[in-house]
Amino acid sequence: MEHVSLPALSRVAICGGTHGNELSGVWIVREMQKQQVEKVGSISITTVMSNPRAVEACKRYMETDLNRCFTDAILSAPVTDVTPYEVRRAHELNAQLGPKGSQEAMDLVCDLHNTTANMGLCVIFTTFNWISLHIYKYLKARALCVPEFVSELFLLFSTAFEVGPQPNGVVRADIYNLMKEALDHLVDWVQEFNSGITFEGGEVEAYVFEKSIDYPRDPDTNELTAIIHPQLQDKDFILLKPGDPIFLSFSGETVKYEGKELYPFFVNECAYYEKHIAFHLAQKTILTIPSVSVEND
Amino acid sequence: MEHVSLPALSRVAICGGTHGNELSGVWIVREMQKQQVEKVGSISITTVMSNPRAVEACKRYMETDLNRCFTDAILSAPVTDVTPYEVRRAHELNAQLGPKGSQEAMDLVCDLHNTTANMGLCVIFTTFNWISLHIYKYLKARALCVPEFVSELFLLFSTAFEVGPQPNGVVRADIYNLMKEALDHLVDWVQEFNSGITFEGGEVEAYVFEKSIDYPRDPDTNELTAIIHPQLQDKDFILLKPGDPIFLSFSGETVKYEGKELYPFFVNECAYYEKHIAFHLAQKTILTIPSVSVEND
Repeated sequence: MEHVSLPALSRVAICGGTHGNELSGVWIVREMQKQQVEKVGSISITTVMSNPRAVEACKRYMETDLNRCFTDAILSAPVTDVTPYEVRRAHELNAQLGPKGSQEAMDLVCDLHNTTANMGLCVIFTTFNWISLHIYKYLKARALCVPEFVSELFLLFSTAFEVGPQPNGVVRADIYNLMKEALDHLVDWVQEFNSGITFEGGEVEAYVFEKSIDYPRDPDTNELTAIIHPQLQDKDFILLKPGDPIFLSFSGETVKYEGKELYPFFVNECAYYEKHIAFHLAQKTILTIPSVSVEND
Repeated sequence: MEHVSLPALSRVAICGGTHGNELSGVWIVREMQKQQVEKVGSISITTVMSNPRAVEACKRYMETDLNRCFTDAILSAPVTDVTPYEVRRAHELNAQLGPKGSQEAMDLVCDLHNTTANMGLCVIFTTFNWISLHIYKYLKARALCVPEFVSELFLLFSTAFEVGPQPNGVVRADIYNLMKEALDHLVDWVQEFNSGITFEGGEVEAYVFEKSIDYPRDPDTNELTAIIHPQLQDKDFILLKPGDPIFLSFSGETVKYEGKELYPFFVNECAYYEKHIAFHLAQKTILTIPSVSVEND
């Protein structure tokens, strides 16, 4: 694959509290704001508390999930008196960090998330993005545990760190430190990139989202009838084979997996009960990425 | 210690959802209600969803912590239009399960809780209570992991199971199964007791609450400046010695423990941030308990 030259990454935004009860990012952003981190070497840093009301209430969101509000449709619709708080916040963030696709937009937005799933440190991004992939490769070389997957959708970030397991509303120092370390490496990478270093390309393993599996539910009440099986719990990114147990009903029966071999992730994520997702399934793939360096002016 | 004869335990209440986001008990009570468990051998079983609105909202409580509402002062005060929901619920539960100290009261109330702390299965009770202690001894003999401590205060239960670690709003099958198994053994014990079996006394280890430690906070804003140190995280019921790290500040400094050797528990419990408790400290003690059997009619 050929070499790719890309513009310098002068403006980096670091966002916490996009989900108000995912506390690692909340506290990292608070600490950076307290220490007035606004510039690191060649990079201007913008720190953002994405959903301050939800942070205050220690809830994922007040009215609707902010991290599903960054669609073109939502961002181009007018704001009225009845617009939900998070939709208004999405407009504000788009103005502050974007507008998406504009000249003034941030060059890199890193959004900080936690999960109750045992996912370690994941780099998430929405489209094939050489910068994110190189940052991921850089983190892997530094022995941070980093599965990665490619998600879809209408999210705030160009890159996100998703770190777990951590309960909502709790800060664990191990998870905080892991996220902080990843963020420091990200900033290092951007500085090295801006300084003219060429980052070699090559192959990187990644997980590509394939589908979601819901919990078994009572057809009348829609309530759960089963939960994640103990043999699947905490087994994110470990190959799931047909016949493996996936659910255990409240009355004690095991439900087995039927389908092709895939990799589960976001297993038993708290916020996904309401989204009817017990876990996601992904394919493992090898991505070949080009070498990258900064464009000459 | 002498032998103690006690009345039969005919009426047992099993309560879940006293805190609405602690889901093991919520689902155990739902399953028992679905299966219409109302009698097991000699015992009449009452299952109670203690705080249904908080369960519905998946919150600890709506207005005030239900499990701090069972004081004589609160239970004897009149209910008015402005009485908080949980206080009204406490009056209702007291009428349904009590009144406390009356002839019609339940003989045993077992309240089901989860914690984000790594406490395994704990039996909690508020005053020295031979029944609870014998159930605890019985569970220990069955190789369930059961530290125990003696708490204070104005809680719903005569006996509670506190099982963790489990995030709020999540059901983990391992934690659900551990709680269910403990509950099955409790019911077995009560049946054996009612049938006339004598349970031998002896010595049992227990932890007695001594004091609570708050997080370091900013004196101006009252916000946290540090979190539980990685070396203390998940170390519930492991002896804490002077000089051991207890907190890690967001800027990276370690705070060490000063004080006498004690046993930490409820380390990094989600709900205790607002109560200004980073962890509790307990003394380990040996309690000598009498043999018990049911009174002859």
